[in-house]
Amino acid sequence: MVQLAKVPILGNDIIHVGYNIHDHLVETIIKHCPSSTYVICNDTNLSKVPYYQQLVLEFKASLPEGSRLLTYVVKPGETSKSRETKAQLEDYLLVEGCTRDTVMVAIGGGVIGDMIGFVASTFMRGVRVVQVPTSLLAMVDSSIGGKTAIDTPLGKNFIGAFWQPKFVLVDIKWLETLAKREFINGMAEVIKTACIWNADEFTRLESNASLFLNVVNGAKNVKVTNQLANEIDEISNTDIEAMLDHTYKLVLESIKVKAEVVSSDERESSLRNLLNFGHSIGHAYEAILTPQALHGECVSIGMVKEAELSRYFGILSPTQVARLSKILVAYGLPVSPDEKWFKELTLHKKTPLDILLKKMSIDKKNEGSKKKVVILESIGKCYGDSAQFVSDEDLRFILTDETLVYPFKDIPADQQKVVIPPGSKSISNRALILAALGEGQCKIKNLLHSDDTKHMLTAVHELKGATISWEDNGETVVVEGHGGSTLSACADPLYLGNAGTASRFLTSLAALVNSTSSQKYIVLTGNARMQQRPI
Amino acid sequence: MVQLAKVPILGNDIIHVGYNIHDHLVETIIKHCPSSTYVICNDTNLSKVPYYQQLVLEFKASLPEGSRLLTYVVKPGETSKSRETKAQLEDYLLVEGCTRDTVMVAIGGGVIGDMIGFVASTFMRGVRVVQVPTSLLAMVDSSIGGKTAIDTPLGKNFIGAFWQPKFVLVDIKWLETLAKREFINGMAEVIKTACIWNADEFTRLESNASLFLNVVNGAKNVKVTNQLANEIDEISNTDIEAMLDHTYKLVLESIKVKAEVVSSDERESSLRNLLNFGHSIGHAYEAILTPQALHGECVSIGMVKEAELSRYFGILSPTQVARLSKILVAYGLPVSPDEKWFKELTLHKKTPLDILLKKMSIDKKNEGSKKKVVILESIGKCYGDSAQFVSDEDLRFILTDETLVYPFKDIPADQQKVVIPPGSKSISNRALILAALGEGQCKIKNLLHSDDTKHMLTAVHELKGATISWEDNGETVVVEGHGGSTLSACADPLYLGNAGTASRFLTSLAALVNSTSSQKYIVLTGNARMQQRPI
Repeated sequence: MVQLAKVPILGNDIIHVGYNIHDHLVETIIKHCPSSTYVICNDTNLSKVPYYQQLVLEFKASLPEGSRLLTYVVKPGETSKSRETKAQLEDYLLVEGCTRDTVMVAIGGGVIGDMIGFVASTFMRGVRVVQVPTSLLAMVDSSIGGKTAIDTPLGKNFIGAFWQPKFVLVDIKWLETLAKREFINGMAEVIKTACIWNADEFTRLESNASLFLNVVNGAKNVKVTNQLANEIDEISNTDIEAMLDHTYKLVLESIKVKAEVVSSDERESSLRNLLNFGHSIGHAYEAILTPQALHGECVSIGMVKEAELSRYFGILSPTQVARLSKILVAYGLPVSPDEKWFKELTLHKKTPLDILLKKMSIDKKNEGSKKKVVILESIGKCYGDSAQFVSDEDLRFILTDETLVYPFKDIPADQQKVVIPPGSKSISNRALILAALGEGQCKIKNLLHSDDTKHMLTAVHELKGATISWEDNGETVVVEGHGGSTLSACADPLYLGNAGTASRFLTSLAALVNSTSSQKYIVLTGNARMQQRPI
Repeated sequence: MVQLAKVPILGNDIIHVGYNIHDHLVETIIKHCPSSTYVICNDTNLSKVPYYQQLVLEFKASLPEGSRLLTYVVKPGETSKSRETKAQLEDYLLVEGCTRDTVMVAIGGGVIGDMIGFVASTFMRGVRVVQVPTSLLAMVDSSIGGKTAIDTPLGKNFIGAFWQPKFVLVDIKWLETLAKREFINGMAEVIKTACIWNADEFTRLESNASLFLNVVNGAKNVKVTNQLANEIDEISNTDIEAMLDHTYKLVLESIKVKAEVVSSDERESSLRNLLNFGHSIGHAYEAILTPQALHGECVSIGMVKEAELSRYFGILSPTQVARLSKILVAYGLPVSPDEKWFKELTLHKKTPLDILLKKMSIDKKNEGSKKKVVILESIGKCYGDSAQFVSDEDLRFILTDETLVYPFKDIPADQQKVVIPPGSKSISNRALILAALGEGQCKIKNLLHSDDTKHMLTAVHELKGATISWEDNGETVVVEGHGGSTLSACADPLYLGNAGTASRFLTSLAALVNSTSSQKYIVLTGNARMQQRPI
């Protein structure tokens, strides 16, 4: 079972992370935030969750003499993060006679946390707020660090305040009822955080991607009885216990990084900028594609673009860009606005270059008209301690679909130029096969990170052809070949997706494999398209 | 000439006080707050002031390369302190592409300072603001200490933030064009501050009241040419130089107290409460009488009521209540909602007791439903370090027009009760005359502080009948009588207002006075009513 962990931020152990900690939540708030009035705020979706209803009843039952509990419910969705919703809640609090000792309890995702936090920051010039994040995005990102805000018609999060909550009580039990797309959406910030700060966690995330996607794909709708409203509701249900350790770990590790960064730079004068990796470009896409696209989906695209920008500057290696792109895909996130499923989801809206640049020009990180973007140096490490100035020219190069390539001009004949293209798919897979069939250690650099090479690596491993490890933060793959002597047939079919080169070479290789007493043959298979292609 | 003074607040010398310091203002902002965008915000009234126009032109001329100056003008008056005005300004800033390095410069009274300060506190989660207060109220109170807010239909200042300005640049030159009623309005906070913290300054204010009222009563409307808009405007003009030292001193002393209190309790957890003396009850009146009554006028009434509450608790002496009431009248402020001129100004609106109590129940100082009021111990000192809980029963006693007086019940016969009524007007004036005509020192306690006794004291002084001083913080008047030998006729008429007892006794006393070579008679006079009364 997972433990209750306490993570310090700005010197206080106020972030508590656990599973099924409803009693701890009620006790902590009532004991450490004494008040005449507690106001639980959430959206109508959360009202349907039995775990929420149980919490409200427990809270009421635990109230000390002289205290009251109010509940305030808003419509779900980003549109509630508005000036109007803020004003309505403020007027409600005033009519109810709430004073400066009021404690707001924000239970919900990023919208609820941001909006309620901002209301708390300006009601009577600031009342206490406790954040109870219920979405993955809110747990790992928006509830941590005291950033609160609302949206305006001219952009997201431009009006807000830094307002540290008294507690952030993270109960991953809430994720049980989180819709699949929201779950995946939250992974964008988890991957971002590992990507800028924690290479080990990034690697751990890579290894657990398929477990994650299997579990969230298994989400079902279930009917539940509402204990407060006496009605039957339908909610989503995910078997969170099937990946409890992975989920707990990824939430906790993300929170630790964010808390550490915020503690060293609460007001985002420099270091806290880094948490915006993927967000400068991501926000521009989001400004156009909202409300159809989710924040994490746009950040996912933004991360790939900003990683490509880092590569364009010669700071990040192509291998690392590919690793980032691959993990995002593995967790079900889009890596380009042109992906078919994503285009359908966002109603085929266009994202013209000039509009993207214009949206980017209003960004809190910018100074005057100069744009800033977080540049990645490698997986787990940023370039510099803050976002970097970038020119519109460089951004155009990255964001455009068209690039003009022309020969070098005016270069003296005696001056050498070296151009390193990305690794070739075909050569990468050939190198892997050869290294596995050879004897001893073979180090391969500039291997292409793609689905094709991933399938090849998996197959080599499954067929026990070689021992594979990584060096230089994923830049070099080390293949310890066994000369073909250890190859043995595997029981499960080798799934090769749509990987043409992998399918072709592995068909020949399969002929070399020794059969075992229990397994006399090997099955190679692929996706629907692969099953039509010639080999 | 007055010097430029720098007053520290929260450890920084950011409050600068001087006269005619426009060049210092421009230089300070540009040098210490480098930015790509300065936004000067003010109301349309201030736009008419030539000193403002000159400042804008100077600012533009001093801008460094790469910086721009925007100006944003709102409608004058409390209605601009609204959610709508805030939203409009935010949208303007976003459309203009303002980023987090923006510096807002709020030039104006409390409305501008509070509203622009609040906009700055939440724009991009906080940008720099420089406060340039132009009204007396803003100079001594609202611009100091970082409190910002807007109003809602349910009450004033309930939505806001603590947001410390980068500088508060106080130039008393602005007071030259301040309307008379606004000038007097500001004196309420000046008197309040001296009253809770600085007995010496209170005494100094008492002595300069008539100078002040003479100068502000002499305000004239003048026509001026607008240097920015090319039109002729009419504005008020007060001969501020005629009381420059007094004005500078009262502004500086008020600011010093406020800065000291705020520095020890920025977030108003206790000590900063004290600055709310007069405001708990004052706000309730203001909530009803707004917009006809001004803030300072309501605080003036609130101070008298809260002083009466302090007296009712047996903490403040009646003499001190009278002193407070007298100085407020002397500076032209109302001390009761029932004063004839004030009732006319506020359109004869009623202020029913139950509504007052209801308005008081929404107060940021309150805890839950328990009301808090600052209790005065003596002029210059509060009771305790914070506001005190008071019951509705006690407030009803103070705020009502009707009081039921009944004999003590169930008191054992052997138990003594002492009741001290306020000093009598007639006995007070008799005691003063006798002490002045006697020889040696006479100490009078519980002297009534009223217009009548004030006129008597002035007359005794003018006729050189005695030397008068005060002990025990004004509780005891010490009269050094000269046995009538030094009495001598004064050249100016003795103005006795509507003081009946003073007129009667002084008519007899005048017969005892020696004439001098240049002055053979004494003239006693009074107001219109006095000139009709029998003596």
